[in-house]
Amino acid sequence: MELGFIGLGKMGMNMVTRLRRDNHRVVAFDRSADLVKQAEGQGCVAASSLADMIGKLAAPRTVWVMVPSGAPTEETVQAVAALLQPGDTIVDGGNTRFHDDVRRAADLKKKQLHYIDAGTSGGIWGLKVGYCLMIGGEDAPVKRLTPIFTTLAPENGWAHVGGHGAGHYVKMVHNGIEYSMMQGYAEGFELMSKSEYNLDLGRVADLWMHGSVVRSWLLELAVDALKDDPKLDKLKGFVQDSGEGRWMIADAIEKDVPVPTLTTALFTRFRSRQDQSFAEKMLAALRNAFGGHAVRR
Amino acid sequence: MELGFIGLGKMGMNMVTRLRRDNHRVVAFDRSADLVKQAEGQGCVAASSLADMIGKLAAPRTVWVMVPSGAPTEETVQAVAALLQPGDTIVDGGNTRFHDDVRRAADLKKKQLHYIDAGTSGGIWGLKVGYCLMIGGEDAPVKRLTPIFTTLAPENGWAHVGGHGAGHYVKMVHNGIEYSMMQGYAEGFELMSKSEYNLDLGRVADLWMHGSVVRSWLLELAVDALKDDPKLDKLKGFVQDSGEGRWMIADAIEKDVPVPTLTTALFTRFRSRQDQSFAEKMLAALRNAFGGHAVRR
Amino acid sequence: MELGFIGLGKMGMNMVTRLRRDNHRVVAFDRSADLVKQAEGQGCVAASSLADMIGKLAAPRTVWVMVPSGAPTEETVQAVAALLQPGDTIVDGGNTRFHDDVRRAADLKKKQLHYIDAGTSGGIWGLKVGYCLMIGGEDAPVKRLTPIFTTLAPENGWAHVGGHGAGHYVKMVHNGIEYSMMQGYAEGFELMSKSEYNLDLGRVADLWMHGSVVRSWLLELAVDALKDDPKLDKLKGFVQDSGEGRWMIADAIEKDVPVPTLTTALFTRFRSRQDQSFAEKMLAALRNAFGGHAVRR
Amino acid sequence: MELGFIGLGKMGMNMVTRLRRDNHRVVAFDRSADLVKQAEGQGCVAASSLADMIGKLAAPRTVWVMVPSGAPTEETVQAVAALLQPGDTIVDGGNTRFHDDVRRAADLKKKQLHYIDAGTSGGIWGLKVGYCLMIGGEDAPVKRLTPIFTTLAPENGWAHVGGHGAGHYVKMVHNGIEYSMMQGYAEGFELMSKSEYNLDLGRVADLWMHGSVVRSWLLELAVDALKDDPKLDKLKGFVQDSGEGRWMIADAIEKDVPVPTLTTALFTRFRSRQDQSFAEKMLAALRNAFGGHAVRR
Repeated sequence: MELGFIGLGKMGMNMVTRLRRDNHRVVAFDRSADLVKQAEGQGCVAASSLADMIGKLAAPRTVWVMVPSGAPTEETVQAVAALLQPGDTIVDGGNTRFHDDVRRAADLKKKQLHYIDAGTSGGIWGLKVGYCLMIGGEDAPVKRLTPIFTTLAPENGWAHVGGHGAGHYVKMVHNGIEYSMMQGYAEGFELMSKSEYNLDLGRVADLWMHGSVVRSWLLELAVDALKDDPKLDKLKGFVQDSGEGRWMIADAIEKDVPVPTLTTALFTRFRSRQDQSFAEKMLAALRNAFGGHAVRR
Repeated sequence: MELGFIGLGKMGMNMVTRLRRDNHRVVAFDRSADLVKQAEGQGCVAASSLADMIGKLAAPRTVWVMVPSGAPTEETVQAVAALLQPGDTIVDGGNTRFHDDVRRAADLKKKQLHYIDAGTSGGIWGLKVGYCLMIGGEDAPVKRLTPIFTTLAPENGWAHVGGHGAGHYVKMVHNGIEYSMMQGYAEGFELMSKSEYNLDLGRVADLWMHGSVVRSWLLELAVDALKDDPKLDKLKGFVQDSGEGRWMIADAIEKDVPVPTLTTALFTRFRSRQDQSFAEKMLAALRNAFGGHAVRR
Repeated sequence: MELGFIGLGKMGMNMVTRLRRDNHRVVAFDRSADLVKQAEGQGCVAASSLADMIGKLAAPRTVWVMVPSGAPTEETVQAVAALLQPGDTIVDGGNTRFHDDVRRAADLKKKQLHYIDAGTSGGIWGLKVGYCLMIGGEDAPVKRLTPIFTTLAPENGWAHVGGHGAGHYVKMVHNGIEYSMMQGYAEGFELMSKSEYNLDLGRVADLWMHGSVVRSWLLELAVDALKDDPKLDKLKGFVQDSGEGRWMIADAIEKDVPVPTLTTALFTRFRSRQDQSFAEKMLAALRNAFGGHAVRR
Repeated sequence: MELGFIGLGKMGMNMVTRLRRDNHRVVAFDRSADLVKQAEGQGCVAASSLADMIGKLAAPRTVWVMVPSGAPTEETVQAVAALLQPGDTIVDGGNTRFHDDVRRAADLKKKQLHYIDAGTSGGIWGLKVGYCLMIGGEDAPVKRLTPIFTTLAPENGWAHVGGHGAGHYVKMVHNGIEYSMMQGYAEGFELMSKSEYNLDLGRVADLWMHGSVVRSWLLELAVDALKDDPKLDKLKGFVQDSGEGRWMIADAIEKDVPVPTLTTALFTRFRSRQDQSFAEKMLAALRNAFGGHAVRR
């Protein structure tokens, strides 16, 4: 089928590539003319502006928005909505907070536009493996877009999980679990790195991929990382986070659900980005104050 | 090749079955004559006692011990050692604390016996998939037993990870990571169970198995569990632990390594086994004391 | 000096009592006529409505709002503001989220009204000991109200800590620390309750009050609670929370500050209010799935 | 009364000073002759060796051991025991693991020697305030030493809490709680240090000492520390630990008691002593592997 695609970054370009493989007609737009040109090289129809893109699509139109979350997505959705006509559909494939989906869907409904939130997992491997798609929205437009989802996802790799926001909600929880899993591996491998056994960590990770209880895709990635750099000497332990973990904690607190490993994982990342921790200075100051314990200055 | 096998429980019997499939000669013993008979039905040579078992093996002998960890394993290893001759080998396939391996290996060495610790993962699925084997010990006996390890494990599913105790050390860390991963999933699924979206949790778990970042073997098991009992109504949240998590925390503390998600996961299990928590009563008592907040009696 | 006082509950009535002891003129109002009558018994001027209260105050008026946080406080502040005149001051002594203070202060400023946020600690003991007051707002009205603050607080027990919202911000952090301290004591006393030494916990708490590093006012309260009910048999471990801990976590996440013990303390309270934990059921389900471990149904 | 005192360090010398104030006869010994001389200046009888010290005491003798925990204490207790006679008493005032007390008491009993474990809190402030003493052991020797305990402790500041090891057990839990409380304050003050309100942290700490729920002795120390160095710029956040927290976690795990804030507090200290965290590098490596997220090298 046919769709407009906005955002030709790392994720977006790979998705477009998959879509073209199945011969969907893709009208591609990005702020970068170079990226549009690159997409054209893959058989996409180039668009020079949002209006140009929409003009090249037949009703009922579908526009997939794949730009950074927050303001860029919000602005893009608004700008596209202003150009579409009743019956058209916007898909937000980024990492939007689910409350925003609910709000947008209600706003767009007034204009008789459809809105679908598509939580998208798979990272840079999605091109090859396919993207796991968690879809939220109304039945009719989801059904209509089935061929698109089927192309983007691996077999059985997409599902319509609920109403507006449900796709991004499930993706948010997915990412929170991802934090916990990563943290679990990280703790275990740190301990092994300090072991008296002088373990070959890449070898252990590889071994565990074959029949152990902890085998997983993240572990498969760890195998490669540890084989490249067995003591991770080339890296700094500076760990960013992209927001979903924070949102999940906020949601858990709203619903009175304990999420202790997730918070631990997020706080570990915060700590990794501090050069000196005020809290730890305070601990040193207090130990010194009551026990006369030496401090480092 | 040939080996004696002690312990025909859930794990042991499945391992014997795999060994017989590859036509290894297995002399089997268990305290339960019924289980020995069952093993005989799979082509094992039945043994009526440890001495009988050892009498039916040719030098250099190999005896695989697969009995509950702690005292049963310790006693079995000692009893077998008393019957073996220089050049023979004992393999401990259970969940032994690695310090015990180091001690035992040193003791057995005095009698010119070899000792191998084989951390074994795979649970009840090992029969079909193969067991991931983490092997610790000296080179020569490990090399000699390669055909056995190759049969028990899936392809690339065993490795000689280090000296005495290294196998069980790596298995200990494996289990600690397992705790963290399980806890991460548990938190995420609890949150989804409270979501306003009325999510089909089995459906979500299944979806994530196809292309998502959090796909793993544990998640594959979650799919089945949640499809059987979508709200887990049939279960009580009473969660045992088998010791490796505790040992890993002790080892981490000895080495000054933070393992916060592992401890969180273990403490969650402790809490799950308490009917009333004294700590929580104390919190209620203090809130009442300073704020006059209502308490439940 | 003189002020209007709205909200004669547990906290409010005690505060009015302290104010009257120093002969401040207090015009008191509450939705409950009985409570107003009780305040009248302490020498307050009774008010039958907000308008009546304000009519009985001379300009520049001061109205202290001491009602439940959230909607009741918001509505009361709005209603009072509608009746006041330029130069008058509203003090919010409740547990308001500091963002609301900032917003209100800006709104009221347009009407030339002053707004002060007064974080108030001391609970039911404040009547006797005095209330620790953390004051946020502009200099002039804070200076004008010094006699009130001086009466309510113990010596050195009030301070102007910053601009609008600073008082409630500091109170929020105060409460978060309170959670951590309570949790620390609770863990320690639970462990002692399980000790082989059959310890007298009230005796230990009392002992620690005399010269130990962990002596504190909370511990003093623990002494009484544990002397009354040494095993806390009379209580259920059902622990509420009043919101400040949640806000502090949200603020910490916004500022990338790790607050792991606070989150642990809050999640312990969440868990205390669950009868069955879905997460723990999930752990049991997974253990069963991979290891065939027994579950409780 | 009279006692021998071994160990004239920071704690020991102050304790001797208190004992001399009440005119107890103190025979003092330390490996450092200078410190012995200093004690002599306070009216102690100087001892040139353990044997000399014991020769200068009348039966039934009491020897207070106040040396670093672990090997130094163990060796000192053994050496003293070899010189004492039936009916004499050894007091261990250091931070000994309670299992060692149980063992030693049983050993010494065979020689008809008494053993008392005295958990001692108060740090460098004990000289002025008195030491909180948590006493474990048998009734008779504890009763006999009442005048000593009464001198060392503030009023109501010592108690016989149970049998052998109980004193150090209670001290261990005391220190664990201390960790949690310090961590709670540290988190709160770190957050305030990042606040938009530019708070004067020493001022806030001081304020909270007057009537707030979180007032405590540790907070009193924080006041001084923060007034000296409001942003703690002069300190490094390098935080040692002296062992009791580790033992408490081990004991809690043995008894299936969750102690999440204590472990969090200990792990924060571990992290503070790491320059680069392997775990955090691993997180960065995994993020890079699945999402192509930038890493710092």
